[in-house]
Amino acid sequence: MKSCRNNILKLVAITFLLGTNALFSVSQDGYEQDSLFMRKIFDEALSRGEAYEDLKSLCKDVGARLSGSAEADMAVKWGKLRLEKYGFDTVYLQEIQVPHWERGTKESGWYETADGTIYKIDVLALGGSVDTDGLISAELVSFSTLEELRKAEKSKVEGKLVFVNEPMNEKLINTFSAYGGCFPVRSSSAVDAGKLGAVGVIIRSLSLLEHDHPHTGTLRYTDEVEKIPAAAISTKAANQLQQLVDNGEHLTFHLEMNCKSYPDKKSHNVIAEMKGSVYPKNIIAFGGHLDSWDVGEGAHDDGAGIVHTMEALRILKVLDYKPRNTLRVVFFMNEENGNMGGKTYAKKVKEKGENHIAAIESDRGGFSPRGFTCDGSEAHLKLLQAFKLLFEPYELHRFEKGYGGVDIYPLKDEYEDIALFGFLPDSQRYFDYHHNANDVFEEVNKRELELGAASISSLVYLLDKYLLD
Amino acid sequence: MKSCRNNILKLVAITFLLGTNALFSVSQDGYEQDSLFMRKIFDEALSRGEAYEDLKSLCKDVGARLSGSAEADMAVKWGKLRLEKYGFDTVYLQEIQVPHWERGTKESGWYETADGTIYKIDVLALGGSVDTDGLISAELVSFSTLEELRKAEKSKVEGKLVFVNEPMNEKLINTFSAYGGCFPVRSSSAVDAGKLGAVGVIIRSLSLLEHDHPHTGTLRYTDEVEKIPAAAISTKAANQLQQLVDNGEHLTFHLEMNCKSYPDKKSHNVIAEMKGSVYPKNIIAFGGHLDSWDVGEGAHDDGAGIVHTMEALRILKVLDYKPRNTLRVVFFMNEENGNMGGKTYAKKVKEKGENHIAAIESDRGGFSPRGFTCDGSEAHLKLLQAFKLLFEPYELHRFEKGYGGVDIYPLKDEYEDIALFGFLPDSQRYFDYHHNANDVFEEVNKRELELGAASISSLVYLLDKYLLD
Repeated sequence: MKSCRNNILKLVAITFLLGTNALFSVSQDGYEQDSLFMRKIFDEALSRGEAYEDLKSLCKDVGARLSGSAEADMAVKWGKLRLEKYGFDTVYLQEIQVPHWERGTKESGWYETADGTIYKIDVLALGGSVDTDGLISAELVSFSTLEELRKAEKSKVEGKLVFVNEPMNEKLINTFSAYGGCFPVRSSSAVDAGKLGAVGVIIRSLSLLEHDHPHTGTLRYTDEVEKIPAAAISTKAANQLQQLVDNGEHLTFHLEMNCKSYPDKKSHNVIAEMKGSVYPKNIIAFGGHLDSWDVGEGAHDDGAGIVHTMEALRILKVLDYKPRNTLRVVFFMNEENGNMGGKTYAKKVKEKGENHIAAIESDRGGFSPRGFTCDGSEAHLKLLQAFKLLFEPYELHRFEKGYGGVDIYPLKDEYEDIALFGFLPDSQRYFDYHHNANDVFEEVNKRELELGAASISSLVYLLDKYLLD
Repeated sequence: MKSCRNNILKLVAITFLLGTNALFSVSQDGYEQDSLFMRKIFDEALSRGEAYEDLKSLCKDVGARLSGSAEADMAVKWGKLRLEKYGFDTVYLQEIQVPHWERGTKESGWYETADGTIYKIDVLALGGSVDTDGLISAELVSFSTLEELRKAEKSKVEGKLVFVNEPMNEKLINTFSAYGGCFPVRSSSAVDAGKLGAVGVIIRSLSLLEHDHPHTGTLRYTDEVEKIPAAAISTKAANQLQQLVDNGEHLTFHLEMNCKSYPDKKSHNVIAEMKGSVYPKNIIAFGGHLDSWDVGEGAHDDGAGIVHTMEALRILKVLDYKPRNTLRVVFFMNEENGNMGGKTYAKKVKEKGENHIAAIESDRGGFSPRGFTCDGSEAHLKLLQAFKLLFEPYELHRFEKGYGGVDIYPLKDEYEDIALFGFLPDSQRYFDYHHNANDVFEEVNKRELELGAASISSLVYLLDKYLLD
């Protein structure tokens, strides 16, 4: 590890000097070589790229692919076949166990005012929700935030159906921060409402845009609190419902859902490698997650990450790059509702005695690249920032400390010195599509997707070259 | 001007010091004040912004608005009414003369192979094209670049219909550079083919995406060469046609268009102001163009620029900002086919003795902000770059020398010391929509549009504060 640190610092020093032009000649050769190779990577992605057609196939030939579904099994086969087609050194499956929840055939909601006027509303069960056991009808009680619900008297909530209408904070520039702030609304409302004796809960979808598509995503139950059914309504429907609430209407909500959890099922992560020529036992892993929610086509979340990383390796292969370390693409299964792919992967590779030196995740959509986050040591962060100059022609500018990703995070528990990196595309549109019916292939732009793949391929190349000597 | 330069340099010095944290306390107050005010600007745009609804109205209530059309007249009224509604100090029209060309009622194309198989194809007349005077039918002769056409023997082209299938260079990261490279294909093919005796010309649309919508845009005729009709076909249609050409098919092309030029018409630029409290005679102008091509809704081109700049002034007004200089929004007419709005504006304001110190244009779409270009002195560029730190929280990172925009460019001829700035949004998607039927409101993202308006409003504020003392 010491030689690694020294090497990191050497590059950092060189690039800082480059930045001031003080000793440009010292490292000009290396810089030019990297710069030229990255230009080749971007040319390949933009001129002969396959990411877009691969994504089209994943979205249209497979479609939505929630863990435990037939489509998730199909996605595993799809992934293995694609990776084999590209002729990587090794392609194999890694067995995991995944939760299995299904939406079922019934998902109906409407509400009525005191005078009997009825309003139909699209409801979408949150992932993992229990069913309603037939139709439930209850008085609606509304809260503008989760915090307000948590502070409510039991008498106000008991026997009623809770509506939590907490909007994401539109003032935050990074939309993932706004999502983080509202995440507990989706994950905890069922427990918080259940504690107070509610019969069910509906939440405002986590989206920054006013539109018609409710979103889904996991909720969390606890053993101590009775499980109550939970669903989301669209941001537009939430605004309409809120208007009636604000007008003082006494509303009765009717909900029927027959979603259900089944025993865990066998599934797989899908893995492909280019063997390292100098340090074959050192692994740089990069991937996204192969599963998606069961609405839309999982295009941005996370079809983009799958094809980004497959394309990243394909490009290095067609450019005849000889990696020093082993480069490994991992299609993780079950990020959405359990992260059994990421958790199992980290455990199994550690058990096998494999040495992971870095991992990169793409799970923030297929938009124009902005940069990368680094979850590692200060030296790792400095190394990433030393690459900034090389990425400037491609309009990447954010090289900062931050979370790598759900799938790769468990590797931190197994490898003390690992560096985790997260691909950062522009975040403005992500929550227009996230976990809703809008997340389809047509909403991904070809060039934006290709630039993402080239950015990741470039980072893989640079890490392979500079991370360890 | 000397005091201006000194002041610019003062800020540059301060901010460079800020960058190194060496003398942070010296200017911390000013920096914090600017930082807080910009946060208010962005909050207003993102929480209570009106740009998106304004754009919806321009696109849906008015729609496409080519100079000389009834809709262009309507757009002038629309702009004046909106600006009056916002209660700015002065709202007025500035008379100009504009060219008037109309597509007409007929626009048909098909081609046939030697065995008589026919293929219908969508053709879209280039702006300013002459009509075909009934149906023309001619052998198709294909060129893969404009350069190849220019080098062709007359015998190869005479009496034929020329097809120029030059694609934009997808390897260029800035798509406007790729557009610039192909611009002569649209503007010059009719003259170059006409010189060689061609009876008409069709070109591959200037777009980086393979899709079904042909684009339009101006062409140029010269007095020396007979005017021949010119139209574009979609990138997808161009690829299909090319396949037949590559297979050695002998093709006859049939084309009928009754587009027509009419005498120039009266139209107007639309102007609104907030009067300066210290230097009311100094003007900072910012705007976009109100006209659009006659397909789609002119949403990104340039409805976005119109609402960006109107919103920029609205925000400063509702925040009760008291400008030192006069802040002026200009909706330029006729950028697309003549630039008579920009040209006339520059002449008239100079004649009136008005003193323009800076101008900002937004005409690159309503996408996520990346930064600004500066077309001015080195001191102006340094001033712009000194703002970089303030824009960093909003993910703007490009502050560079570059073209301001077509509408404001003529101001350079009238004001030696003027600083021109161009708003730089992400460019990847722009040419998916540019001048084609896809450029509709639905393709503009609300947050991306709002962030653009806030960025421009912030630059107006900073220029007003620091450009002249």
